[in-house]
Amino acid sequence: MKKDKMNDNNMKVKIIPIGGLGLIGMNMTAFEYNNSIVVVDCGLAFPENDMLGIDLVIPDVTYLKENIDKVKGIVFTHGHEDHIGALPYILKELSVPLYATKLTMGLIERKLTEHGLMRTTKRKVVKPGQSINLGEFRIEFIKTNHSIADAVALAIYSPAGIVVHTGDFKVDYTPVFGDAIDLQRFAEIGKKGVLALMCDSTNAERPGFTASERTVGRTFDNLFAEHKNKRIIIATFASNVDRVQQIINSADKYGRKVVVEGRSMVNVISTASELGYLNIPDNTLIELEQMKNYPDEQMVLITTGSQGESMAALSRIASNMHKKVSIKPGDTVIFSSNPIPGNEKAVSRVINELSMKGANVIFQDTHVSGHACQEEIKLIYSLVKPKYSVPVHGEYRHMKAQAGIAEKLGIDKDHIFMLKPGDVLEMDENSARVAGHVQTGSILVDGLGVGDVGNIVLRDRQHLAEDGIVIAVLTLEKYTGQILAGPDIVSRGFVYVREAEDLMDEARSIVEDTMENCISHRITDWSKIKNSIRDSLGDFLWKRTKRRPMILPIIMEVE
Amino acid sequence: MKKDKMNDNNMKVKIIPIGGLGLIGMNMTAFEYNNSIVVVDCGLAFPENDMLGIDLVIPDVTYLKENIDKVKGIVFTHGHEDHIGALPYILKELSVPLYATKLTMGLIERKLTEHGLMRTTKRKVVKPGQSINLGEFRIEFIKTNHSIADAVALAIYSPAGIVVHTGDFKVDYTPVFGDAIDLQRFAEIGKKGVLALMCDSTNAERPGFTASERTVGRTFDNLFAEHKNKRIIIATFASNVDRVQQIINSADKYGRKVVVEGRSMVNVISTASELGYLNIPDNTLIELEQMKNYPDEQMVLITTGSQGESMAALSRIASNMHKKVSIKPGDTVIFSSNPIPGNEKAVSRVINELSMKGANVIFQDTHVSGHACQEEIKLIYSLVKPKYSVPVHGEYRHMKAQAGIAEKLGIDKDHIFMLKPGDVLEMDENSARVAGHVQTGSILVDGLGVGDVGNIVLRDRQHLAEDGIVIAVLTLEKYTGQILAGPDIVSRGFVYVREAEDLMDEARSIVEDTMENCISHRITDWSKIKNSIRDSLGDFLWKRTKRRPMILPIIMEVE
Repeated sequence: MKKDKMNDNNMKVKIIPIGGLGLIGMNMTAFEYNNSIVVVDCGLAFPENDMLGIDLVIPDVTYLKENIDKVKGIVFTHGHEDHIGALPYILKELSVPLYATKLTMGLIERKLTEHGLMRTTKRKVVKPGQSINLGEFRIEFIKTNHSIADAVALAIYSPAGIVVHTGDFKVDYTPVFGDAIDLQRFAEIGKKGVLALMCDSTNAERPGFTASERTVGRTFDNLFAEHKNKRIIIATFASNVDRVQQIINSADKYGRKVVVEGRSMVNVISTASELGYLNIPDNTLIELEQMKNYPDEQMVLITTGSQGESMAALSRIASNMHKKVSIKPGDTVIFSSNPIPGNEKAVSRVINELSMKGANVIFQDTHVSGHACQEEIKLIYSLVKPKYSVPVHGEYRHMKAQAGIAEKLGIDKDHIFMLKPGDVLEMDENSARVAGHVQTGSILVDGLGVGDVGNIVLRDRQHLAEDGIVIAVLTLEKYTGQILAGPDIVSRGFVYVREAEDLMDEARSIVEDTMENCISHRITDWSKIKNSIRDSLGDFLWKRTKRRPMILPIIMEVE
Repeated sequence: MKKDKMNDNNMKVKIIPIGGLGLIGMNMTAFEYNNSIVVVDCGLAFPENDMLGIDLVIPDVTYLKENIDKVKGIVFTHGHEDHIGALPYILKELSVPLYATKLTMGLIERKLTEHGLMRTTKRKVVKPGQSINLGEFRIEFIKTNHSIADAVALAIYSPAGIVVHTGDFKVDYTPVFGDAIDLQRFAEIGKKGVLALMCDSTNAERPGFTASERTVGRTFDNLFAEHKNKRIIIATFASNVDRVQQIINSADKYGRKVVVEGRSMVNVISTASELGYLNIPDNTLIELEQMKNYPDEQMVLITTGSQGESMAALSRIASNMHKKVSIKPGDTVIFSSNPIPGNEKAVSRVINELSMKGANVIFQDTHVSGHACQEEIKLIYSLVKPKYSVPVHGEYRHMKAQAGIAEKLGIDKDHIFMLKPGDVLEMDENSARVAGHVQTGSILVDGLGVGDVGNIVLRDRQHLAEDGIVIAVLTLEKYTGQILAGPDIVSRGFVYVREAEDLMDEARSIVEDTMENCISHRITDWSKIKNSIRDSLGDFLWKRTKRRPMILPIIMEVE
């Protein structure tokens, strides 16, 4: 009986999100059938505000490590950091073959080269329209549109049925580069019968359609015509190759030279142009150093920093920290981007700095999203006609909004699955259910440390950030417990010590009294002494300042 | 000759912004003529992201303290925190009379009571339309509309001419409470000839008109009709009395009881209703404790937390931390607010938490701004027809946008003054110029400490927040300099120590080697020893972890 049930389970396809649901970033999903696992994407997340000092966050792949024999490879939908960024870290634990389209693979290979992983990593470039066999799965790459070229959706064929994963997508009937999304193929696969659709939720709260990338090109043309006599600086996302293409097109049309500034953008642009994803007219692109040889009205500077990132080129230019570019009164600065939630204040700070230096800042109508809005989501559902709906990519509110759309389109409420990372969704033609849960989580990367900063360290950083630290240090005679030196009070981030000498003197007496009290009560257990100091000093400082610095008693012992 | 010039200067009116320009908050402006100074508003600012652990920020009033004999009083435009919030702190340094409309004074008196300042502070309630004489100034209160009742603009009459200060305002032809803005009076004063207009810049980037507060009431009615069978929870700004009035109106119409939750909102509502600014039908308002006696469909809960503030009522409800209210599946939660820039992520987190608990979250069409958009700004300029324009209230970009509007309306570019805090703008009928600069600045309040946290402490907190602290402590023999105890390495917020014992052991040897090296080179200067430890330990930790914790060497000495 039990064996039958197991067999039965093995006839189902399992969908296991490793990350990426209920948050932005860290996109990674495992598909499992019998002895085969195929992984889709391997993204990083950027740290939340309370993750002090953390550089980036990667998914916990314990489940994949424990089942490494089954894992046939990682398949990528596109080359954004939230889909490829964790790869160098994960590959060190999980050396498996990679499959991606040409530009996506180009961007992946840049990372592998940086981390010395090229030699040891199997890679295969796949064209949209092609399929690959991975264990008992067949994976078909389907052309889509997104804010980076060469994005694909995946049709994941298993003996238990077909799962369609859209990746990040929009419907762009008039894309800047290459073809429009292959809607016919979505329809054909839909006709065959699709078990589940995993669809991008990012814009599921927004009604209507996302505009074509091409509309931005028309806006650029208008702005170039309007600002003929001004230097033009345009900030946009480093990875938006099509956006850069359109800026180059407008520059060419209006007789301007183009400079690209900002390391990440230079990287993406050189990869994209080597691989033929950018069409740059001769003598258009010049080096930053040559900029001085051209008058302002013949220049366009394309730069990173559209999100107000403090170390990016535009922020450095705005705050006079850039070595080679400074703002002149009359410069036209265009933000070809929207602030990502959380970045609004940083962007505003850069806009203020630019304005103060006399720049004319334009931040309207020069951006379109790369994600499908409600009508596009409805279109994909209507072509694919899945039995089950599994909203992916977004915060909970976005996934919930897609679930609402799916329900309106007639999908049974019980057939819509709002998954969390680690959920094991088992399904076949007859049924689908969350049948279990595997270990997942967020691993924090800080400098070279991967996973060595956890909750305790973060909590300490938050405490230190809030009110600083007060250290009480003293040296005791080992046998008598008498004070030989100290107590000394040292503080950092608590109060400006030179103006708080009285407070520090009183703090010292408090510690002294506490110690004497301990000695007179013959308390010799260090942890008890430390707790007494922590309590008495903490109470004193709270009463006097209404602050709660971290209190750190240090006791040394001399024989 | 010199005396003449001085006399001449004294015949001019000086406008001196103490805070509030180029930032949101800390609104405070001094007007000076001869031996009279009148101050308008006394607001606080909320701390920027990098002001770790800071509770609030108040303006530096050194200039006013130095000229205390001239200061005739503080006049208030309305009762928002960014206009009255610094008062309890400033009054302790600057005891001067206060002048405000009834509701504004009610809110001020709440603060004075809390801080024990009622007995020592002279106060006078002024009605819109009335004037007061303060030294050589006459101040007229002019009725306006804003997101709090009883807001006024000020006409500031001096022998050198009239300055009109709009305060925060919008044009609401159909306000919920009281009269529409007194446009006729603006026109009359304009006819007399106005020297300068100081106008609210907050929405100067937004085209069109701000909608009437009353439109929100209609949306509430529709939502109440749509969600008849659900419990309704509405989050809004604590101080928006008119918004609360409209919710109460809809509740009354649809037979619901109203509960108000959140300390700041309860305070404002009780002040407003005591003073007659709220019209609450009998038996509508009930206590939180009585909520359980009514079915869900007969309840509306009005709450604070519309900005995702982590300690506010709505956030506590959303995260199951509220003692008396928890979300039930099917609850309707309405955000009657827009996120203030910087709060987007916090708001989103609350929305996600509410959605996860099954609430239906509505956050569209239930808010209007309290600030004038471009067409309203043009209207005020056209009524007042000032000679000079001084944009106030907003970040630089907003003030710049207003300057652009003023220029389009025909005001000479040289007559538009983009001031910074501390600038002294001198003007009369013949000329206007920034003639000097006085001390201003931001004073940080942390717990009981006012101004004791400055740049050094903040920089330490930022450093501690980023990578934590590593303390190297050792005890030396006073005369020989030999190590008697230690070195001990203690860290907080740097790395999880239990899993980094090797690293800590190596760090200890590094410090030991450094000390021995110092001893063998007969280096006895403690500051040199500490620097050596800081350098060697810092380098070692950077190489091993790519982190830069704060390194704190502590040396104790035993005779």
